[in-house]
Amino acid sequence: MKLSHTTTERVKFSDVDSMGIMWHGHYIRLFEEGREQFGLQYTLDYLTVFSHGFFTPIIKTEINHLAPLDYGDTAVIEATFIFNKAAKIEFQYKIFSQNTKKLVCTGKTIQVFLNKNKELYITNPPFFEKWKLKHFQDA
Amino acid sequence: MKLSHTTTERVKFSDVDSMGIMWHGHYIRLFEEGREQFGLQYTLDYLTVFSHGFFTPIIKTEINHLAPLDYGDTAVIEATFIFNKAAKIEFQYKIFSQNTKKLVCTGKTIQVFLNKNKELYITNPPFFEKWKLKHFQDA
Amino acid sequence: MKLSHTTTERVKFSDVDSMGIMWHGHYIRLFEEGREQFGLQYTLDYLTVFSHGFFTPIIKTEINHLAPLDYGDTAVIEATFIFNKAAKIEFQYKIFSQNTKKLVCTGKTIQVFLNKNKELYITNPPFFEKWKLKHFQDA
Amino acid sequence: MKLSHTTTERVKFSDVDSMGIMWHGHYIRLFEEGREQFGLQYTLDYLTVFSHGFFTPIIKTEINHLAPLDYGDTAVIEATFIFNKAAKIEFQYKIFSQNTKKLVCTGKTIQVFLNKNKELYITNPPFFEKWKLKHFQDA
Repeated sequence: MKLSHTTTERVKFSDVDSMGIMWHGHYIRLFEEGREQFGLQYTLDYLTVFSHGFFTPIIKTEINHLAPLDYGDTAVIEATFIFNKAAKIEFQYKIFSQNTKKLVCTGKTIQVFLNKNKELYITNPPFFEKWKLKHFQDA
Repeated sequence: MKLSHTTTERVKFSDVDSMGIMWHGHYIRLFEEGREQFGLQYTLDYLTVFSHGFFTPIIKTEINHLAPLDYGDTAVIEATFIFNKAAKIEFQYKIFSQNTKKLVCTGKTIQVFLNKNKELYITNPPFFEKWKLKHFQDA
Repeated sequence: MKLSHTTTERVKFSDVDSMGIMWHGHYIRLFEEGREQFGLQYTLDYLTVFSHGFFTPIIKTEINHLAPLDYGDTAVIEATFIFNKAAKIEFQYKIFSQNTKKLVCTGKTIQVFLNKNKELYITNPPFFEKWKLKHFQDA
Repeated sequence: MKLSHTTTERVKFSDVDSMGIMWHGHYIRLFEEGREQFGLQYTLDYLTVFSHGFFTPIIKTEINHLAPLDYGDTAVIEATFIFNKAAKIEFQYKIFSQNTKKLVCTGKTIQVFLNKNKELYITNPPFFEKWKLKHFQDA
């Protein structure tokens, strides 16, 4: 069970390295932007989560590069929420080149919940429990 | 009247653009690092200022580029505090290439004082008054 | 005489500093994006200029900050080409907050022409002469 | 069999996010800096590899975050080359906080060889074969 959202982001001059392609470190920003646009669409964005009293720091990131993104191309970012019973947020990502339509990058992030004292929350926060119920009622 | 400090910073792969030189936007980081190393030397660093109850946001930046910095070169950053009676922090910068010894960039920043409610402070905060007296007693 | 173009850019989590506002160094990226979107609109973008055999490095940047941009706000970037007979590209910028409609930043950049051997070109490249004639025929 | 090198990098104001800790995306820069300082020590740095006619783009990155790095702390970056017979470069990373001495991050990257036409090289480039022989002669 999963829920996806797609957004786009232009490859800018400041994104590009001396090989003329997006520097590999910038893909984390693409993941973050894909995740946040998903959140704005499905009410799981940074400020909403924060309004419920939680931070959701990343504890794990995986990135696989299949092809480069050139300057002037546009990244098409598909962020997919992966359902999970635990108090964790898992997203998987696919990034495509708008020019070539090819898959250029895949990846995954895992986030946990900290309360405002920055203590780890090991059960699902009530707002997140509800959110999962709403979107994955058959789970 | 002025006080200077010099620090160095390697030009890294992630700093370099498609022309193989430090991207112009990264010089602001060099200024910030020169200013902070000055502050750590002369007790005017970010955390010290914050411990006195103040933020010092930048309100003006000027940057002049005279020559590029190549990948693998090291920026030699000279940050100079310019004395001023007003409740402002002015720094001037000179950046040299360690490889060529040439001056590659000059610049300037101006900062003001905000208290923790983010209100502008138009007189010198007492700690800063004392700091200026200590370093520029003849001013 | 001048020509303007307006574009927008969301303030992202990775743009924001420990005060929760866009870090001052990132405004240079906003200027660059405003300039590039102007270029894509008026055929003066990076790849077009490069196709004529030229790089246009920045030699001067000025930035004035009037108010902060918060996380989640959107920068409205107005980039204005300022006509000039010299072999230089001057842009002025105004950045507004989409939330408050306030002017938050003004600035200016100056670029020069280098040929592909990275030699400074002190007369107007023919393609740029034509471009200016087209857009500023009464100048 | 492995070979390690340790370097340090200060957590700067521009590295820190709205939670006051190093933004997770910047750890990729720490990995890159650890790898490059290893390379400068053991003659496997970017410019040396390039001088032999090769680029070594990253095809895989993994990052695990165990604890945050605060502003003003210093990252102690241990980069370890992992021996492998294939035409790949694998590094593993451990990042420690200089303040707390705690392990804050672990990770791994894999790089492949492209020649200057950006074609994948599936056998070991001769210079790299020699390099491995020199450092892992018993392998």
